[in-house]
Amino acid sequence: MTDTIRRIVLASRPAGPPRPGDFRLEETAMPDVPEGQLLLQTIYLSLDPYMRGRMSDARSYADPIRIGDVMLGATVSRIRQSRHRDWKEGDIVVAYSGWQTHALSDGRDLRRIDPAVAPISTGLGVLGMTGFTAYAGLRNIGRPKPGETVVVAAASGAVGSVVGQIARIGGARAIGIAGGPDKCAFVKNELGFDAAIDHRAPDFARQLAEACPDGIDVYFENVGGAVWDAVLPLLNDFARIPLCGMISHYNDEAVAKPSIDRLPASMKTIQQKSITIRGFMNVEFLDQQPAFLEEATGWVRDGRLKWREDIVDGLEQAPAAFIGLLNGHNFGKLVVRVSSEA
Amino acid sequence: MTDTIRRIVLASRPAGPPRPGDFRLEETAMPDVPEGQLLLQTIYLSLDPYMRGRMSDARSYADPIRIGDVMLGATVSRIRQSRHRDWKEGDIVVAYSGWQTHALSDGRDLRRIDPAVAPISTGLGVLGMTGFTAYAGLRNIGRPKPGETVVVAAASGAVGSVVGQIARIGGARAIGIAGGPDKCAFVKNELGFDAAIDHRAPDFARQLAEACPDGIDVYFENVGGAVWDAVLPLLNDFARIPLCGMISHYNDEAVAKPSIDRLPASMKTIQQKSITIRGFMNVEFLDQQPAFLEEATGWVRDGRLKWREDIVDGLEQAPAAFIGLLNGHNFGKLVVRVSSEA
Repeated sequence: MTDTIRRIVLASRPAGPPRPGDFRLEETAMPDVPEGQLLLQTIYLSLDPYMRGRMSDARSYADPIRIGDVMLGATVSRIRQSRHRDWKEGDIVVAYSGWQTHALSDGRDLRRIDPAVAPISTGLGVLGMTGFTAYAGLRNIGRPKPGETVVVAAASGAVGSVVGQIARIGGARAIGIAGGPDKCAFVKNELGFDAAIDHRAPDFARQLAEACPDGIDVYFENVGGAVWDAVLPLLNDFARIPLCGMISHYNDEAVAKPSIDRLPASMKTIQQKSITIRGFMNVEFLDQQPAFLEEATGWVRDGRLKWREDIVDGLEQAPAAFIGLLNGHNFGKLVVRVSSEA
Repeated sequence: MTDTIRRIVLASRPAGPPRPGDFRLEETAMPDVPEGQLLLQTIYLSLDPYMRGRMSDARSYADPIRIGDVMLGATVSRIRQSRHRDWKEGDIVVAYSGWQTHALSDGRDLRRIDPAVAPISTGLGVLGMTGFTAYAGLRNIGRPKPGETVVVAAASGAVGSVVGQIARIGGARAIGIAGGPDKCAFVKNELGFDAAIDHRAPDFARQLAEACPDGIDVYFENVGGAVWDAVLPLLNDFARIPLCGMISHYNDEAVAKPSIDRLPASMKTIQQKSITIRGFMNVEFLDQQPAFLEEATGWVRDGRLKWREDIVDGLEQAPAAFIGLLNGHNFGKLVVRVSSEA
């Protein structure tokens, strides 16, 4: 075992899209493990769009990462050393170690995962927080009824892929929006969505309208931008919009540029059609996580809930992979393999 | 009794703000009353912002008024002649006769009102649809808890004035926004809001922030525009926004002008603070109207629910009064006295 920890810290706050220089790789000495604690070795690190928000110091639901601090994030880790009576060496857990090879933990907020159920990396995706985000938003806000039409953006991504599959399990129609023919083919053929529309197509809005002849009852919003403009005129009376993210705007500069003000038209539609928009974070619904894990594990086992991972090798690749994530370069749940499973 | 009906019809669809020439006063012969019907004489006609939407042929929740048809609207009317067994001459009812002096009715959708409770014109306002709109939006969407802060725009208006008073009856703080010192004084001193802020003040946003030291838990939206921009940064986590109307945008031309796109910032805030926006119309909640009438009548009787009416004399004044309503020229619920009560 090495005697240093490698970690990636926030070097500077990005203005607009993060650049490699906003991150810095550091080494530090491996700590001793105090009584009551344990040492985690990171196997997989999850990269997720919400991290972009934490890199800024704008007021948000969560504190920003401080300059010089380790980038945060969920991990699948192995317990390398335990001085905690509830945990033993070799256990595989979901932790929140951040962008580093090792971390101390007092055992709180660890969740043991069973490698026999599915590949352990799924603890960060379909059986982890992104899967749970899809489940919570759909169950608490979207509430699709059988036969209703559910549209989800970023449909090949970690959250969107689960949204559409759960909607279909419940008897709704699922229409996915994705970027490019490969992702669309995956959404339709592998994930089994009723249709997949390429938002890069010049006639994207027309294609979406054709795929939704009965309008849209649930729009699971996680991108914003031009997709919203195509969705808006198709929304039915009493449509529900779980607002999960706005990845297309995460890199917007603070100073808005002159353009068309799209707010009044959106608000008028929401008012005239009695639409609900509800922002949410999965942590609001944490009491439903056990129910999610039980249901989702069953769906994974019987093949009704599929997933795709985009695995990048090596902690030092995390900044570039994260920058690509914000531009839609990943294909499936983006995960960094920090050390081998064996 | 005169032998003609006077009525105001839609002459042309306005592009932007309606002009007097978009309306036309007509006379037509008084009809005979068929068996099973009754003849209503309009005493008061309600003028409301939603009518602007019906003058356009854009897709909406309701069909547009056709060119040449009578402008629609709620009225307080007297039954002048009855050939319907359930109704007798002299009864005072809330009807939906539109902008005309007389109308036939088959008795459906009439609601008898008791002149002993309050002035009969209140059947169009505080004890009518505008009062019920306030009640329904607050009870079903806003749901203020005691001690929470409720902000309402157009606070001296027909809906806003009731929103703030009901919020206070339920133990919440009510902050009203109105245009000009007279309306603000009325909102604070007569209606008893905790504070009233003039949206025309150069430091409006700062004043609003000072009046909401604990942030905003409920924003009852019925204006849109610049008020929204001042409210947005003050919204608390889990804030609720009943979206009742967007009067500042009702006259927007179809072609949007270049400006700043305010949508992304709004959506980001909604997402990060787990905010709910819910468009609504009072008709969704019609089953709650009896409960409203019972509660509101009690509040009116014991002086806890006050109102102000802006009464204009003569049907021919309706177009000018309506045009003024869309510019905030009225002060209180706008009503046209079409014939005398006596």
